[in-house]
Amino acid sequence: MVSQPPANHEHIDDEMIKMEVNLDDISGEWLGYVMDRLFEAGANDVYYTSIYMKKNRPGILLQLLCAHAKIDNMKAILLKETTTLGIRYYPVTVHRMERRFISVPTEWGPVSVKQGIQHGEVFQSSPEYEDCKAIAQKHMVPLKKVYAEVWKQIDQ
Amino acid sequence: MVSQPPANHEHIDDEMIKMEVNLDDISGEWLGYVMDRLFEAGANDVYYTSIYMKKNRPGILLQLLCAHAKIDNMKAILLKETTTLGIRYYPVTVHRMERRFISVPTEWGPVSVKQGIQHGEVFQSSPEYEDCKAIAQKHMVPLKKVYAEVWKQIDQ
Amino acid sequence: MVSQPPANHEHIDDEMIKMEVNLDDISGEWLGYVMDRLFEAGANDVYYTSIYMKKNRPGILLQLLCAHAKIDNMKAILLKETTTLGIRYYPVTVHRMERRFISVPTEWGPVSVKQGIQHGEVFQSSPEYEDCKAIAQKHMVPLKKVYAEVWKQIDQ
Amino acid sequence: MVSQPPANHEHIDDEMIKMEVNLDDISGEWLGYVMDRLFEAGANDVYYTSIYMKKNRPGILLQLLCAHAKIDNMKAILLKETTTLGIRYYPVTVHRMERRFISVPTEWGPVSVKQGIQHGEVFQSSPEYEDCKAIAQKHMVPLKKVYAEVWKQIDQ
Amino acid sequence: MVSQPPANHEHIDDEMIKMEVNLDDISGEWLGYVMDRLFEAGANDVYYTSIYMKKNRPGILLQLLCAHAKIDNMKAILLKETTTLGIRYYPVTVHRMERRFISVPTEWGPVSVKQGIQHGEVFQSSPEYEDCKAIAQKHMVPLKKVYAEVWKQIDQ
Amino acid sequence: MVSQPPANHEHIDDEMIKMEVNLDDISGEWLGYVMDRLFEAGANDVYYTSIYMKKNRPGILLQLLCAHAKIDNMKAILLKETTTLGIRYYPVTVHRMERRFISVPTEWGPVSVKQGIQHGEVFQSSPEYEDCKAIAQKHMVPLKKVYAEVWKQIDQ
Repeated sequence: MVSQPPANHEHIDDEMIKMEVNLDDISGEWLGYVMDRLFEAGANDVYYTSIYMKKNRPGILLQLLCAHAKIDNMKAILLKETTTLGIRYYPVTVHRMERRFISVPTEWGPVSVKQGIQHGEVFQSSPEYEDCKAIAQKHMVPLKKVYAEVWKQIDQ
Repeated sequence: MVSQPPANHEHIDDEMIKMEVNLDDISGEWLGYVMDRLFEAGANDVYYTSIYMKKNRPGILLQLLCAHAKIDNMKAILLKETTTLGIRYYPVTVHRMERRFISVPTEWGPVSVKQGIQHGEVFQSSPEYEDCKAIAQKHMVPLKKVYAEVWKQIDQ
Repeated sequence: MVSQPPANHEHIDDEMIKMEVNLDDISGEWLGYVMDRLFEAGANDVYYTSIYMKKNRPGILLQLLCAHAKIDNMKAILLKETTTLGIRYYPVTVHRMERRFISVPTEWGPVSVKQGIQHGEVFQSSPEYEDCKAIAQKHMVPLKKVYAEVWKQIDQ
Repeated sequence: MVSQPPANHEHIDDEMIKMEVNLDDISGEWLGYVMDRLFEAGANDVYYTSIYMKKNRPGILLQLLCAHAKIDNMKAILLKETTTLGIRYYPVTVHRMERRFISVPTEWGPVSVKQGIQHGEVFQSSPEYEDCKAIAQKHMVPLKKVYAEVWKQIDQ
Repeated sequence: MVSQPPANHEHIDDEMIKMEVNLDDISGEWLGYVMDRLFEAGANDVYYTSIYMKKNRPGILLQLLCAHAKIDNMKAILLKETTTLGIRYYPVTVHRMERRFISVPTEWGPVSVKQGIQHGEVFQSSPEYEDCKAIAQKHMVPLKKVYAEVWKQIDQ
Repeated sequence: MVSQPPANHEHIDDEMIKMEVNLDDISGEWLGYVMDRLFEAGANDVYYTSIYMKKNRPGILLQLLCAHAKIDNMKAILLKETTTLGIRYYPVTVHRMERRFISVPTEWGPVSVKQGIQHGEVFQSSPEYEDCKAIAQKHMVPLKKVYAEVWKQIDQ
């Protein structure tokens, strides 16, 4: 869903921002919609935390991470689609590890695996969810069986 | 806030019910209001839990405990003040311990303390919040100092 | 998503069951998948609660509501797609209010509205999310504007 | 509850601070009290998040937003009324939209509505909770009916 | 930690009970302690959920599952170690699948794996956490590497 | 668990950092393990928050506070023991109050109490959990009784 994926080599990204909004006058129904809009518009990540607000209100803390270049897009969506009149900004530094994508064969076809690399060594291997899900649904096998099969093929 | 407090001697209460509603299309603002209405109408307890619902919706599970005799009152409020069209019921048995109230003197005046008793022995002593709060505000002392003072006076 | 929607007249349903599983050895990625499978297979509702489990583990309580006739389907999915070896069952009684669907015109086309009725009176009017979402996306208007327009047309 | 409301025109506020405390040795009873004290002393917002802390402890993250000028007041309350010995500070920038208040007539009297404005256009209209609550209680109508009535009167 | 583990063949257990307590006047520090005591005394499971209680209080819902024979032990701990004066009980039926334990060799030694079996087929394989943890710490390898190694050896 | 405790006099610490990771593809079992590793390696605090992530995933926000000098240690553990490929950093300023430790006698032996001091006055007294726990277990008394006894001895 990310429009501009970060670079694949290890790097420090100082051009990120965290935007934050507290919401106590919006329904969960609308919030589900808002999350999709923010991802489509290029947020690197969006997540909700349930919080305790004044007057016994269960509220939601909306947080998103994006590049500086995306701030105006995000702001436009937050104002149009949520009920807020104010947005908070925090500078954030992101350290991203080197990553590469490999293709792993399974009995149901290939699955893409994202690997994390440091000092030339693989320290992380994550099968791509969408690939595994597609196989699980097409071949009617449990999702966890697909993952298990992929893990077996990887030299971890 | 409870309209009909349970009896003070140890007893098993089989006349209680838990009512439950999942909500994803109501704001926190309204939920704060609903909680107060339910307590006023005689709920023994009301509490909210944040839950993950379908379509990425942060929702709220409203739960309340009340006597069978209060079910219609609760139902009327839930239908009028929330957005639900259905209510779930679970039978519940409540075991309540013997309790008594004593008055404990402090330098700012007396504080009521609720005690739990079993086999003639006190196993629990809880200073009444509203008493302590009133002292804290009137005498401008920290609330925790008021509690500490009360605890000192109690033979636990 | 519900395969067999409940009847539209007010009724008490005693044929429902709540199924419950505690999970501490499954990822969020898989849980998102499981929820969809359970809805597709006919669960009336599925929701997650984050819980504190032993050994400092953030866990998930999976709860679902279904008709007795669906229990085996649900069990099959829970065993295949989660990591559990046991399932808990609670009987539940559901009181459902009379409901009807009306069509409300807006400048962008009609929206279905679900209404709750008691003693011949409408006490609840909920615009259908999927209708409003489709309009919001097709006509590029904020979702909240679509809801506002629908509410205006309803005699609440 | 805010002692010094922010200006009504659109502006960037760089004079805000977020203060943060992790708490695992205080009861919910006291935390309810603390929130009120912080708002009274001029916090712009106060909210709690439940967190998982070491040794299987369900803890609370207390967060508050305030102007730099209020830091000492906040600190005094946190030290006196909670159990912490340390406070964390984060700089925060707040972007606030232009807002104005209009009065909207209803059959039960006027209700104040806060509106958000951008490029001369209203993108947000929030009925004031306390006004709606007062009407709901005085006229014994559901709160949601009061909001619905107000929304009908607003040209959104 | 369970004192009387359930039987290994598939069975329906009707002799279980859920006990439940709402707590708003106890610290997280004590709750961490309570959980350990309850497990030691034979609870099958204990878990906490953070809830929103009256007067803006973040509270905790303590839930535990145990056999009927353990109820008195649990009650004694709840009264002595928490601040409650009442306990709620719900009957619960537990469906447990057939399970068996196999030993899986790894380069660091054997790991016990719990398997779930239905219709003679293995549908679940969970490496024992304590075994994997012991290896991870003794051989200074990442825990996830130990799990990965075990999964490779299992015919899933 | 902190390897390098902060100084005991009141001070402002500008050498702290908050590290943050969002996780949706790791189990609670592993997260319990990760928390212990981070504390052992010198984190000042580590805590988890449950968050709502995309695609209906219940996720975990891992946050930790540490001195700049510990960043590399923390990073190494996060990469080896979790499933992340990126870490976020926020500068944080910590204001710590003057603290001292006193020994308080009880009928079961001495308990260490951490006190907070400002302008020469004690505003906080926290009995050390590990001391109280050791007494509770050795002498088989409720933990809350041990705390109560300690509080009685302190001039608050």
